[in-house]
Amino acid sequence: MEVIGVLSFAVAGVVDARKQRFDAVGTFVVAFATAFGGGTVRDVLLDRRPFYWVEHEGYVILIFAMSIGASVVFRVVSRVASERTMLVADAIGLGLFAVTGTSLALVAQMPAFVAVMMGIISSVFGGVVRDVLCNEMPMILRDRVPYATCAFAGCWVYLGLTWLDAQQEAALLAGALTTTATRLVSVWRGWRLPG
Amino acid sequence: MEVIGVLSFAVAGVVDARKQRFDAVGTFVVAFATAFGGGTVRDVLLDRRPFYWVEHEGYVILIFAMSIGASVVFRVVSRVASERTMLVADAIGLGLFAVTGTSLALVAQMPAFVAVMMGIISSVFGGVVRDVLCNEMPMILRDRVPYATCAFAGCWVYLGLTWLDAQQEAALLAGALTTTATRLVSVWRGWRLPG
Amino acid sequence: MEVIGVLSFAVAGVVDARKQRFDAVGTFVVAFATAFGGGTVRDVLLDRRPFYWVEHEGYVILIFAMSIGASVVFRVVSRVASERTMLVADAIGLGLFAVTGTSLALVAQMPAFVAVMMGIISSVFGGVVRDVLCNEMPMILRDRVPYATCAFAGCWVYLGLTWLDAQQEAALLAGALTTTATRLVSVWRGWRLPG
Repeated sequence: MEVIGVLSFAVAGVVDARKQRFDAVGTFVVAFATAFGGGTVRDVLLDRRPFYWVEHEGYVILIFAMSIGASVVFRVVSRVASERTMLVADAIGLGLFAVTGTSLALVAQMPAFVAVMMGIISSVFGGVVRDVLCNEMPMILRDRVPYATCAFAGCWVYLGLTWLDAQQEAALLAGALTTTATRLVSVWRGWRLPG
Repeated sequence: MEVIGVLSFAVAGVVDARKQRFDAVGTFVVAFATAFGGGTVRDVLLDRRPFYWVEHEGYVILIFAMSIGASVVFRVVSRVASERTMLVADAIGLGLFAVTGTSLALVAQMPAFVAVMMGIISSVFGGVVRDVLCNEMPMILRDRVPYATCAFAGCWVYLGLTWLDAQQEAALLAGALTTTATRLVSVWRGWRLPG
Repeated sequence: MEVIGVLSFAVAGVVDARKQRFDAVGTFVVAFATAFGGGTVRDVLLDRRPFYWVEHEGYVILIFAMSIGASVVFRVVSRVASERTMLVADAIGLGLFAVTGTSLALVAQMPAFVAVMMGIISSVFGGVVRDVLCNEMPMILRDRVPYATCAFAGCWVYLGLTWLDAQQEAALLAGALTTTATRLVSVWRGWRLPG
């Protein structure tokens, strides 16, 4: 499942970089930041090593290959995946990173609220790092469509089920599904946070 | 005293976010970055764990509550606290973070000049992180009103007194007061750094 | 040789800050980020301590002195060093940081591709951090003149020679020279990456 999260974020990064007409180097930076930025910031905060991308070098090479062939990737993605498919993939990535981040923080003995924050950081900071690098205001500040809020809800569902001694896999799945579902529903219904 | 520093920075963050009309999520990100950004960057550099906000989860929850009720906080602050009060609170926070940062770096065996830098990072990097996230040029680069310079002065006062074997509490207090006082005087007299 | 890398990056930072008419504080931040940003990010990722600038406090003090006397430094550099000299100095810094970064990552048991990434991060992230602080899009994203690509080439030359059991010094030198040479040639010939 982690594979889906990383890949959907990486592909989203390549497509984004392509829209800005970056060269292969810029595309790689943007795709890498999107896919691994959140997890890396979380791991630095939790002082966890090695990073996911150090243990799974294959992903880095894959992202590198996609950056070299970005125009091909872009054309294939544009043909195969509609905007809607990309949105679903991103929502799935959001859900998976949120619950895994929270769970890793619990293993590192973080208190509950901090663990939820780590889950949110894991899932949304890739996008924040990418936007900061591209000199744009991060989407989670700019935009009122719920995004971090969905991760927040899913992390608490996961935590609540853990407290109720639910099976770990079931709790992870329920949390991830909550995040993904609230994200998709809120885009579909055009929900906005008050400000 | 640390409470005052964190709270004044957090309130300043909420007020800032409110002015940009962010939603609750954006407000939380901005307030959290302002209050804990400097200390967290310092702790990552010094390889210290756990972070202050991990040990004192209550602050995170408080900032979260303030972000949810940001419009109320904003109205209360606007009524109770004048611009001048906010400036004083920020100057006190600046002084406290500067000397604590330097003192923590000394404990971690850093050489004197590096310890002073850690003090400055603790006190001004919260604002830098916030400005980078909001896609603005950091105030310490843009603006010539002394800010980091005041922290610099206070850190050296603290270091000097430590070398003279002054009592630790007295040295911390004198350093913090130096920073706060030079900051307030330089705003009051309209001092500018040459450039 | 490391001295040359750090100094050329620091001087480039001072000159850059001067062009934006920053005060001494801003100049120090920009020069420090340019000279040590890349190595510091690499060391945080590799969990290495102490940082280079903590062990060699002298450089920090030197950059501080240069920032205070930035207008003098700027005048001297403008007279002594043409644009071309600065470009050569930067290319040498790029080469040195790239191979040292890769070599440190190998010592830390990183797989080959990740080690190359660490080399690139060491050599180009100082500029990225500086550009992010100055609220500009990083040059490696914006610009198609090969830069990170030259570091990439040099790191692989170094790695290849290491695999062939070449002497460590020879491999480092060959890698650094490859980076510096490809960088200079690509500027001279006006090469552009396709995008």
